Amino acid sequence: MFSSMGNEYISGQQIAQELGCSRQAIWKAMDELRQDGFEIEAIRRKGYRLIGNSDQFSKSELLYQLNTSHIGQVIELYESVSSTQIIAHEKAKDGAKHGTVIMAEEQTSGRGRMTRQWSSPKNTGIWMSTILRPTIHPQEAPPITLVVAVAIAQSIEELTGIIPTIKWPNDILVGSKKIAGILTELQSEMDVIHYMIIGTGINVNTEEFPEELKSIASSLLIETGEKQSRVKLAQLIWEKVEKLLDIYEKHGFAPIKLLWESYVQSIGQEIQARTLQGTYQGIMRGITDKGVLELELSNGRIVPIYSADIEIL
Amino acid sequence: MFSSMGNEYISGQQIAQELGCSRQAIWKAMDELRQDGFEIEAIRRKGYRLIGNSDQFSKSELLYQLNTSHIGQVIELYESVSSTQIIAHEKAKDGAKHGTVIMAEEQTSGRGRMTRQWSSPKNTGIWMSTILRPTIHPQEAPPITLVVAVAIAQSIEELTGIIPTIKWPNDILVGSKKIAGILTELQSEMDVIHYMIIGTGINVNTEEFPEELKSIASSLLIETGEKQSRVKLAQLIWEKVEKLLDIYEKHGFAPIKLLWESYVQSIGQEIQARTLQGTYQGIMRGITDKGVLELELSNGRIVPIYSADIEIL
Repeated sequence: MFSSMGNEYISGQQIAQELGCSRQAIWKAMDELRQDGFEIEAIRRKGYRLIGNSDQFSKSELLYQLNTSHIGQVIELYESVSSTQIIAHEKAKDGAKHGTVIMAEEQTSGRGRMTRQWSSPKNTGIWMSTILRPTIHPQEAPPITLVVAVAIAQSIEELTGIIPTIKWPNDILVGSKKIAGILTELQSEMDVIHYMIIGTGINVNTEEFPEELKSIASSLLIETGEKQSRVKLAQLIWEKVEKLLDIYEKHGFAPIKLLWESYVQSIGQEIQARTLQGTYQGIMRGITDKGVLELELSNGRIVPIYSADIEIL
Repeated sequence: MFSSMGNEYISGQQIAQELGCSRQAIWKAMDELRQDGFEIEAIRRKGYRLIGNSDQFSKSELLYQLNTSHIGQVIELYESVSSTQIIAHEKAKDGAKHGTVIMAEEQTSGRGRMTRQWSSPKNTGIWMSTILRPTIHPQEAPPITLVVAVAIAQSIEELTGIIPTIKWPNDILVGSKKIAGILTELQSEMDVIHYMIIGTGINVNTEEFPEELKSIASSLLIETGEKQSRVKLAQLIWEKVEKLLDIYEKHGFAPIKLLWESYVQSIGQEIQARTLQGTYQGIMRGITDKGVLELELSNGRIVPIYSADIEIL
């Protein structure tokens, strides 16, 4: 009933009639929605009007018209946590279902890849960890980071019109600045995945970054000049992750790889890859079906890069 | 000084002279050894004699002449735990070093692969979980189970003269009965291993199995007719795991594969492989360099089997 969010008022009586319940029940529901963070205006003889959403996430808003079977269907929402990733590990160990999402308005010690810090200020971003129990073998897990990167890139494009770029392995950029990052963790036996945790940090409505991050980080608000709906973005991501994951499980990485490459600008360019074993320089040729980056050195030799920080030269 | 365990007495004075310390210090040390579970006889004017080891593990005995750099150098010993695997996960998360071993005299809910039960009665076996932080990529982790299987088979052979067989992926048999099992768990990011936990359950001095296990399980005591040293076996395994792991990290799986195949009897034989996707029947052709089993169907097609229970037909 609130799908045409905007200037229209709708009377309590009309809602009650449409839903076949009492006006008392409507009044109670409105109160609950308000407590969940919706801003609802109520004017005598005119009715109710949804003004907008507060800067707070609410479960009912996140679940409203969410078009998934599993991902995001169970949400645990926190005001402030050290890291959603840590909570997700605990919940997964306790048997949380495939698709359960742990979200927080703020992380006090959010983590990126390799225990790097991730800034997660209050009410400005999407800081969430999704528990997956995919029906794949552990060997097939590494490309999942790339599947999620495509889902985030597509969602940002659909919401804002901006076409982001993916930086292998786990960053989403707008221009040269980081908008989002992915941290994929795996807990498995040798031949069976117990669970995966997909951590995603997305700078949505950050107005300003601290001095030390200004040159490397940005937000959708800064890039578009407009506040963006965190709820809509989260829903888009869940829908696309579910869809792409299904494609990956059924058809392998080939169809995803095409999508992934369409968001990557460094293919064919000279890059530097800093690995734990040393630094390599060469032309990025692409990725394999296992998600491994292929770097062509000046002598023509192709080096597989499993793990690195890359930079376009 | 106790290396020639047996009938010889050695006087406190002689020990004190050799070690350059007081007889008081020797007396104190003997007392500590007794508390650790050594049975030491002390007779006036004759001296001390190590009668034997009790049925209890002791740290000093486990560390005595242990020839490793890391594996087994830190041991946490428990009387009774639900599962050493669970404790090892906690310790690993708290930063336990590469090679740390969690051992227990008894597990009340020991686990095998895919959360199957593992019987771990008191003081009869080696129930331990080893924390590894190998310098390999997550993609290279699956063959570690096979590396450990070879180490256990070699150790049993060296200790008892019995040549055990390895049943892919994670069991060690004598004849057709299970002597040991391996449960390898991995916690990783997509491109970096946080840690691995290698759980090993070995039936050493089990005298009798409950009725329902009698036809499928055995122990080294039952197979050799003699009580075996759990300490010596644990030390052998740690030494061999360390050595083979080093070979694997430096030279890959090829040299290990040769050793592994020498303990496997099902190669070239008709087997049935029950997987989550269905049951396959065919000739076991061997394993790939990733540790994946290759099954040749009757139509000549080779099917890669990542995870299954196999049975020789």
